Amino acid sequence: MSHNSFGHLFRVTTWGESHGPAIGCVVDGCPPGLKVTEADLQHWLDRRKPGTSRFVTQRREDDIVKILSGVFEDDRTDGPRTTGTPISLVIENTDQRSKDYSEIRDSYRPGHADYAYDKKYGIRDYRGGGRSSARETAMRVAAGGVARLALGPQVTIRCAVVQIGPNKINRDNWDWDQCEQNPFWCPDAEAAAQWEDYLDGVRKSGSSCGAILEVVAEGVPPGWGAPVYAKLDTEVAAALMSINAVKGVEIGAGFASAELTGETNADEMRKKGNDVEFLSNNNGGVLGGISTGQPVVARFAVKPTSSILTERKTVTKDGEDTDIRTKGRHDPCVGIRAAPVAEAMLACVLADHKLRHRGQVG
Amino acid sequence: MSHNSFGHLFRVTTWGESHGPAIGCVVDGCPPGLKVTEADLQHWLDRRKPGTSRFVTQRREDDIVKILSGVFEDDRTDGPRTTGTPISLVIENTDQRSKDYSEIRDSYRPGHADYAYDKKYGIRDYRGGGRSSARETAMRVAAGGVARLALGPQVTIRCAVVQIGPNKINRDNWDWDQCEQNPFWCPDAEAAAQWEDYLDGVRKSGSSCGAILEVVAEGVPPGWGAPVYAKLDTEVAAALMSINAVKGVEIGAGFASAELTGETNADEMRKKGNDVEFLSNNNGGVLGGISTGQPVVARFAVKPTSSILTERKTVTKDGEDTDIRTKGRHDPCVGIRAAPVAEAMLACVLADHKLRHRGQVG
Amino acid sequence: MSHNSFGHLFRVTTWGESHGPAIGCVVDGCPPGLKVTEADLQHWLDRRKPGTSRFVTQRREDDIVKILSGVFEDDRTDGPRTTGTPISLVIENTDQRSKDYSEIRDSYRPGHADYAYDKKYGIRDYRGGGRSSARETAMRVAAGGVARLALGPQVTIRCAVVQIGPNKINRDNWDWDQCEQNPFWCPDAEAAAQWEDYLDGVRKSGSSCGAILEVVAEGVPPGWGAPVYAKLDTEVAAALMSINAVKGVEIGAGFASAELTGETNADEMRKKGNDVEFLSNNNGGVLGGISTGQPVVARFAVKPTSSILTERKTVTKDGEDTDIRTKGRHDPCVGIRAAPVAEAMLACVLADHKLRHRGQVG
Amino acid sequence: MSHNSFGHLFRVTTWGESHGPAIGCVVDGCPPGLKVTEADLQHWLDRRKPGTSRFVTQRREDDIVKILSGVFEDDRTDGPRTTGTPISLVIENTDQRSKDYSEIRDSYRPGHADYAYDKKYGIRDYRGGGRSSARETAMRVAAGGVARLALGPQVTIRCAVVQIGPNKINRDNWDWDQCEQNPFWCPDAEAAAQWEDYLDGVRKSGSSCGAILEVVAEGVPPGWGAPVYAKLDTEVAAALMSINAVKGVEIGAGFASAELTGETNADEMRKKGNDVEFLSNNNGGVLGGISTGQPVVARFAVKPTSSILTERKTVTKDGEDTDIRTKGRHDPCVGIRAAPVAEAMLACVLADHKLRHRGQVG
Repeated sequence: MSHNSFGHLFRVTTWGESHGPAIGCVVDGCPPGLKVTEADLQHWLDRRKPGTSRFVTQRREDDIVKILSGVFEDDRTDGPRTTGTPISLVIENTDQRSKDYSEIRDSYRPGHADYAYDKKYGIRDYRGGGRSSARETAMRVAAGGVARLALGPQVTIRCAVVQIGPNKINRDNWDWDQCEQNPFWCPDAEAAAQWEDYLDGVRKSGSSCGAILEVVAEGVPPGWGAPVYAKLDTEVAAALMSINAVKGVEIGAGFASAELTGETNADEMRKKGNDVEFLSNNNGGVLGGISTGQPVVARFAVKPTSSILTERKTVTKDGEDTDIRTKGRHDPCVGIRAAPVAEAMLACVLADHKLRHRGQVG
Repeated sequence: MSHNSFGHLFRVTTWGESHGPAIGCVVDGCPPGLKVTEADLQHWLDRRKPGTSRFVTQRREDDIVKILSGVFEDDRTDGPRTTGTPISLVIENTDQRSKDYSEIRDSYRPGHADYAYDKKYGIRDYRGGGRSSARETAMRVAAGGVARLALGPQVTIRCAVVQIGPNKINRDNWDWDQCEQNPFWCPDAEAAAQWEDYLDGVRKSGSSCGAILEVVAEGVPPGWGAPVYAKLDTEVAAALMSINAVKGVEIGAGFASAELTGETNADEMRKKGNDVEFLSNNNGGVLGGISTGQPVVARFAVKPTSSILTERKTVTKDGEDTDIRTKGRHDPCVGIRAAPVAEAMLACVLADHKLRHRGQVG
Repeated sequence: MSHNSFGHLFRVTTWGESHGPAIGCVVDGCPPGLKVTEADLQHWLDRRKPGTSRFVTQRREDDIVKILSGVFEDDRTDGPRTTGTPISLVIENTDQRSKDYSEIRDSYRPGHADYAYDKKYGIRDYRGGGRSSARETAMRVAAGGVARLALGPQVTIRCAVVQIGPNKINRDNWDWDQCEQNPFWCPDAEAAAQWEDYLDGVRKSGSSCGAILEVVAEGVPPGWGAPVYAKLDTEVAAALMSINAVKGVEIGAGFASAELTGETNADEMRKKGNDVEFLSNNNGGVLGGISTGQPVVARFAVKPTSSILTERKTVTKDGEDTDIRTKGRHDPCVGIRAAPVAEAMLACVLADHKLRHRGQVG
Repeated sequence: MSHNSFGHLFRVTTWGESHGPAIGCVVDGCPPGLKVTEADLQHWLDRRKPGTSRFVTQRREDDIVKILSGVFEDDRTDGPRTTGTPISLVIENTDQRSKDYSEIRDSYRPGHADYAYDKKYGIRDYRGGGRSSARETAMRVAAGGVARLALGPQVTIRCAVVQIGPNKINRDNWDWDQCEQNPFWCPDAEAAAQWEDYLDGVRKSGSSCGAILEVVAEGVPPGWGAPVYAKLDTEVAAALMSINAVKGVEIGAGFASAELTGETNADEMRKKGNDVEFLSNNNGGVLGGISTGQPVVARFAVKPTSSILTERKTVTKDGEDTDIRTKGRHDPCVGIRAAPVAEAMLACVLADHKLRHRGQVG
């Protein structure tokens, strides 16, 4: 990962600030000949779109993605296809309310990147968080839509929210179909009902809460990844960690593996037809940095939204004490909106490793 | 990260198999003029060395590091210094016992990389794990020694084991000096005493257990890191995740932040002299991917050693069911040995970001 | 260089096809705090603009560059400045004449990339050359405008055309000011007058000719570059070679150095005040891959425009023999238009090495 | 290219100074399963070895290459094979004559990297040129041996010297077999005879001369390379330009294309059986940055050896005027020894592009 790009053969570069004229990305290295339309990518963006329930920010943006390059419809063929050249995607920022930014211009919001950016660069686009805004993740979702095409239909990637604040799901109730039927990407219908009450309380009090999400890729063949520094789990961890507000990542049994014994942790194997069956998946689908053919399973923690209505202590740009509270639209639990983003990041990492594996091994 | 290298300006490439003639690394991009001797690097390697207590593998290797390039002693100056050209470091493998590898040649050890490597490459150096052996981490430690020189004395990097199996330290007892006085890098003298009994039991039963470690860098100035994909915490997470057997990484409050409220999580700030003081460090020293000047704090989980004496179910290379147990020398808790490795990885990431920050911002 | 990007710390990614909706680039890693406006970049684009004389293509495009990100005007400061985040630049394609592309869709134009693209990707945006069109170089020029800001006023970069077809300049007449006073970037007023007649002949006959250009950077301090693979001259050569239709690059004495003796070739040095003076510049400002403080001097050859009015033998997409001639607008000597592009590429390489040197050495 | 590495999927990193204990390289990303022995690589090194005729340096080094990792012989198979993990190659420096370096320690040799290195790094391993010595190219040759295996037998790479000083070959006499039968890699037996006299004169006078070489790859299929910045010819140019003392590179017709017309330059095509035949190869096997299936042809110029017996003007490290002449062993025409190096560099670039193409396109 360098600056604002990630991936090696399937490489994504994003650009844009929250309140600039547009945000966008360039997807470089995509295989040629894949059928793709703007509507295909819009499908994924619509799942991320704010303003869809009372539990996410009411900032309204249509987030209409446009394809500016890298896709071509030959007049003798059956629809637009990728050409193998860079795919430029752009979303115009349409909801740039003219407002007074003087408070966040002059004071550092605790938990936000304001202070760190100023210390690094000496200048900061303070409007809506600028480059550090989660708005950037829209482009990850768009790029992830391309990555899914590069992966093909045999790979399925889904993300679920498994904990909001202190409230965990009951894993016995897990049903992926539920994720699309509640506003929380929650696979447990009972938990979703409880979360609704819980989050209403959080929202009304002007507070916020964190979340834990689980993202799973099924259909990944064995052999993707690499030893040592380009391990598949290393790059999955980096990809998830790079999402705004993420503070922890784990693969398979993750932190719980500290309490397991060697006997229970090591996933045993048995012959199954002409193939091999693992009797458990504590490794999360990755051994030695390389996929095993089991589902790739990762979890990550998202901290509470830093923008809250309660006043917090901070300092001004000039180093004076002050207090600040964040007015306006915000998510009570920004973690909910990370689900489509995590899917997209996992898709991009897997697409990159698919191509890298094919490059080295054929 | 690509293949067997990591870092951008301060870039480390490692090579070597567990039972080949040698292992080594190339450290490219190191600033010139830094005083360094083989003894300086040996200091760090000695802290990682196996065979020092009954709680780590009895495989005995002196692990003597040699500097083959990139360091030069001008006969008019006061000792060898880095020249800015690539530093080649090598350790000969002296303890390559001639032994029978036919079992691990033909059967896949559960929890190890054997199956995944074979599926990827169709060939595998099975002697002692080959490239997937933790032996590779010796070179990370050597490279980390160089990174510490590039960071200079104002940055201090230390790692502690905070949990072994289910046994956590009492953080009120935290004393960094203790880490050098017990065989566990444990900062809590009471916990260390308990762990001794616990690990003796694990060892005698031929089993193994996992661990959680905490690595901390103090003295990091604000401004290192970058937004979005080259976030400092993203690269710290990747660096730790790339260590053998690591299954989870968290920064600052980490997974616990899911249960915090926005009010408690966002680290408040106050003026302190001409500087700024944070009133807590849930962010782990990083905001928006950029260092804040607070200590950089990360934790990571290491799974139980996969090599155990109990028989486990597995398959042969030819796909037939069999059972396997790992004879010979092994660590009851491989996590203990990860402490010097984690320090080294954090040092390398920070050195790289120091140079990258200086490159962009001056 | 990877795919559609180049540079390490100052990194440029371009995208877009000749007849798509737009072309653009992302400049990542630019130092923060540099004053820049769209007009500053437009200045350089206007020097590249087609349609300005009868010697360049009459395709008319205003080539108006827009800054979409990475530049911010704080309302308390004196104009927009770079923020250190990625700078997205875009130019809309306004002159996409609706026309019949069936001939170049079905047949491969000799000298063009048509055949190679189809063999590689199996699909090709044939409208106006698509990705292989020299239109892409507009974004290099825009990025080069940013690079010049990163270099600062002490570095001056200029390019001259020194040969058109078989007609060379007289180097004794060299006057940089002349370059801006004729349509050929020719530093020799006499040669420029001759070239006018020569090119009129070429143009009227529907033929084309090649050119040789010289690009010079003055004010580069000693120490930029690196040994072995990231040599300054290596990266300058790559940058120039990547420009459409370039078939050769040389540094300093270049190919002529084959005929020099060791005595004449090695640039002697003498003390000059507190500094060092070189008595010649056969090295072209670079020794061992590192700048010496002398002007960096490179020359490159551009092949004749491949689009000509005369019929040439070729094959169709289906492998049948046919003949083809290129109708419509084209440059009789595309080399002329490479001058602003070469300046831009040299600026980008130098900016990258400035930052890389600062990163490693401080 | 970054620092001391090049290539993306097939990536080579070299290290080592002329008079340090050893030089070496790491070849990362090599496909697994390729049969390779030390003798296979030694074959290529022996072709580069100094001390084989009076026309090359009498420095005697056996240059015995050892494989330290990445190659494994399974006891059930038919010889050692690559495993897909990094291949570490090393050559010990055995001819480190103890001698007096005080002159080149204190004074800058004109034409050498001495001055530039000191200006960049403030420190320099002056023994035999240190990192800037052509000794580094031995590792390129070793890596090139691996690259040839990755390319397979269908790709043939050969290099010829086509000009020494002012003396060109007669291309009508071209016979590749001759290259192995004279000490100049000269494909023209008559020219070789003349060069012998010419170089004896150069050598006896203590002077030196330059050379031009041509390197050709046959059997490259169409489709390798990429548009815009990772063009195949761009990377070939960079690879050749990175060789010590190279001052110019050209592809196909190269600089001569400036004097061609569009009609003669554009290589026409005709059907040939089920394939396509080009009627000329001015493009040098590359169009739009992508291979066409024709031979890839590049030429490059090597400047005269900078180490000569005649005194030249220079300055000391302290900035005082002095004169210097280079005593001891040197090549009268260092260009001759570049032939095996150029072959190796072309092999590495092609191997990398083979893997990259396979990665993206399958």
